[in-house]
Amino acid sequence: MEFKGRDIISIRDFTREEIDYILRTAGKTEQMEASQEQLNLLQGKFLGITFFEPSTRTRLSFEAAMKKMGGGIIGFGEPEMSSVKKGETLADTIRVVENYVDALVLRHPMEGSARLAADFAEVPVINAGSGAEEHPTQALLDLYTIYKEKGQIDGLEIGILGDLRYGRTVHSLSYALANYKVTLHLISPPELRMRREVFWDIKGKIQVEQAENVEDVISRLDVLYVTRIQKERFPDPAEYERVKGAYKIDGELLAKAKPELIVMHPLPRVDEITPEVDQTRHAVYFRQVRYGLITRMALLGLVMGAL
Amino acid sequence: MEFKGRDIISIRDFTREEIDYILRTAGKTEQMEASQEQLNLLQGKFLGITFFEPSTRTRLSFEAAMKKMGGGIIGFGEPEMSSVKKGETLADTIRVVENYVDALVLRHPMEGSARLAADFAEVPVINAGSGAEEHPTQALLDLYTIYKEKGQIDGLEIGILGDLRYGRTVHSLSYALANYKVTLHLISPPELRMRREVFWDIKGKIQVEQAENVEDVISRLDVLYVTRIQKERFPDPAEYERVKGAYKIDGELLAKAKPELIVMHPLPRVDEITPEVDQTRHAVYFRQVRYGLITRMALLGLVMGAL
Amino acid sequence: MEFKGRDIISIRDFTREEIDYILRTAGKTEQMEASQEQLNLLQGKFLGITFFEPSTRTRLSFEAAMKKMGGGIIGFGEPEMSSVKKGETLADTIRVVENYVDALVLRHPMEGSARLAADFAEVPVINAGSGAEEHPTQALLDLYTIYKEKGQIDGLEIGILGDLRYGRTVHSLSYALANYKVTLHLISPPELRMRREVFWDIKGKIQVEQAENVEDVISRLDVLYVTRIQKERFPDPAEYERVKGAYKIDGELLAKAKPELIVMHPLPRVDEITPEVDQTRHAVYFRQVRYGLITRMALLGLVMGAL
Repeated sequence: MEFKGRDIISIRDFTREEIDYILRTAGKTEQMEASQEQLNLLQGKFLGITFFEPSTRTRLSFEAAMKKMGGGIIGFGEPEMSSVKKGETLADTIRVVENYVDALVLRHPMEGSARLAADFAEVPVINAGSGAEEHPTQALLDLYTIYKEKGQIDGLEIGILGDLRYGRTVHSLSYALANYKVTLHLISPPELRMRREVFWDIKGKIQVEQAENVEDVISRLDVLYVTRIQKERFPDPAEYERVKGAYKIDGELLAKAKPELIVMHPLPRVDEITPEVDQTRHAVYFRQVRYGLITRMALLGLVMGAL
Repeated sequence: MEFKGRDIISIRDFTREEIDYILRTAGKTEQMEASQEQLNLLQGKFLGITFFEPSTRTRLSFEAAMKKMGGGIIGFGEPEMSSVKKGETLADTIRVVENYVDALVLRHPMEGSARLAADFAEVPVINAGSGAEEHPTQALLDLYTIYKEKGQIDGLEIGILGDLRYGRTVHSLSYALANYKVTLHLISPPELRMRREVFWDIKGKIQVEQAENVEDVISRLDVLYVTRIQKERFPDPAEYERVKGAYKIDGELLAKAKPELIVMHPLPRVDEITPEVDQTRHAVYFRQVRYGLITRMALLGLVMGAL
Repeated sequence: MEFKGRDIISIRDFTREEIDYILRTAGKTEQMEASQEQLNLLQGKFLGITFFEPSTRTRLSFEAAMKKMGGGIIGFGEPEMSSVKKGETLADTIRVVENYVDALVLRHPMEGSARLAADFAEVPVINAGSGAEEHPTQALLDLYTIYKEKGQIDGLEIGILGDLRYGRTVHSLSYALANYKVTLHLISPPELRMRREVFWDIKGKIQVEQAENVEDVISRLDVLYVTRIQKERFPDPAEYERVKGAYKIDGELLAKAKPELIVMHPLPRVDEITPEVDQTRHAVYFRQVRYGLITRMALLGLVMGAL
């Protein structure tokens, strides 16, 4: 399977076979990383970081991935890049920065920005979040986390909890899971339910159930993917206060879960998972960070032709 | 010719022989860069980035140049360096940072700042833009672009268009070109004409002609160097609206040009060159970015004694 | 002596034997650095920079130290890290970043933050300044400067001048010196005298004298450590104007000093040391920057098990 030179724009561009290939490559990368002092697979290569929206966490993950593969970083992590302020178009910025690098990672607040960048760039472009729709590398690292922690993805009952309406992580992950034989439980307040078009896309491929209360489904789940519910999303703050308790993960709730349930979170969390959960065997959200590093190492190796 | 340890402060500090030597060294660097996986000429060496004025573009070019030579970067790209806010002098900041590095690149809003830094630093200082007067590495990369694209500089008719009054790029390039047997066409609205002292300096060495309209001279040019005209430069906005059309480069204008005309731009461009031009054989402004990388790789290699 | 995996949180956590071991290791590191093109002791290792308070100077020193040891840097130098803005706790941020690195350097405005980070991190944590109390690596580099410039620390008369009340550098250095047989002269206006609890801690171990005027003690000193007096510290600005002259170091004052007196400063200085002093044999404050680099190289090598 050939990934060299390929853009990573949307999880929907990938077949199940391709996703499985990426997960297996991540597995091999994890083994190499554990056994060698220093990977030099991308030595002499450079990754361009073009973040038009601040995201320290995603940026650090990509930078660490590139450096741990032996490569270097060139770019900017702040939206206030001076030439953009002067009125430069995205297409021009991309055509400048690509002169320095072997691949580009883009983060941008606008829908379609990553696709546009890929159209202009001669080097491969990796979408690190564009608009509200796409965050494909997050979806891949989430799959890799499930694959590593549970041994397989097929056959699992997976709950996604929180803001299913606005989160790009949730959209990309749902599309990714639609390639597998899973039952998806969408758990959210009515205000934050998954958008109709995404819901029906997924519903056409896998079993999807909706719930308003995590307690009602917790005992059936193998995986619980928690996301943050932002107060600002509610027109009426009183409504937020009324519902928020139903979306808090604590020891009491987890007492009703399967012993092997894993709790995931894209981080940062605020108070949607209480600290007592951190010490339980359910918590995998900090290991998930490491799986993210590994997945991105594999993706960089693939698109730059080193894996 | 010995460049090791030498400061690069003003293009006027260099003779034609020295400039030609730099251009030839850039040519060799370009060949090495193309033929080798990784240049290690500056391995174990560090470049200090001291940018007291934001300039993402120039900073990225220098950082990429240093890293592609195998060296490392230490420094800051933001004017709000905390010790400067506390009242530290430029001389002190330079004497601190030079403890970590083998050469320094400085960007500063004040005239004379680069010269001052060079007086205090024991390592070589490269001026990456100081005040409105000097940007010597931009001039060198512009020369290298012409040299590579046209095969030579002598004998060419070169137009410089736009804001000739305030642009430091224009000043440094004009002084650089005054070393060669060229005809220089200065094309600008009356408000933005080149300052008298610069004009007469150059006029004493090469043939210089002034024009208000690019259409009048386009057919004679081998090189057209376009710069941005900023609305803020005009006391009367209506005057800006009246003249701006005469300084827009589009397909219609280029139909009157020589087939081999090259169009250059220091970037970022806003709307002074229309996107249709990007696809024509005239457009070299994105390749110019790459020539800039190569020229700076050569300069870093020269002042650190590796070339 | 085993430092691998050890946290560096407070200078008070170290015995004299341990501090002496660090100083000797810094001495060896300095020799290695001078004799080799490139140290590769930390190749393949990464240092996490987590600065929740801007400090360009300390950050550059740690980054340079890590890179000169052959290692890499991953992290952020700005307090506005996006996930912190979203409400992430320090403990969570640390548990994320440690996935990417072999040791962490933390700068944080709150007392106790470094200790908290060390409790959560599995990798060693180095405190690069927390609250008003602790800056242990500054104290170690100050000791190394004295050790290198004077050949020994025992037996010296050391003056610390300026703001002894609020400066974390002063506190850490005083505690460090209390391990040696020195006489400490605390020179400050009454408003900025060392806090009682620190004073009595030190007084119990070494000879401490207080002075209001540097002129009264200058002739006895082997080392004069100068810190900045900030106008904002005085409730009455007139009082600041009245006293500031007594804390300015100039040629006239130094004429009364021993020829071998060394003048140190943690930098940045503003006007508490006049520029004429820079050229005298007394001035070691710029060399102190280099000693800081060496000391931090040694510390990184120690906690990561390479020295």
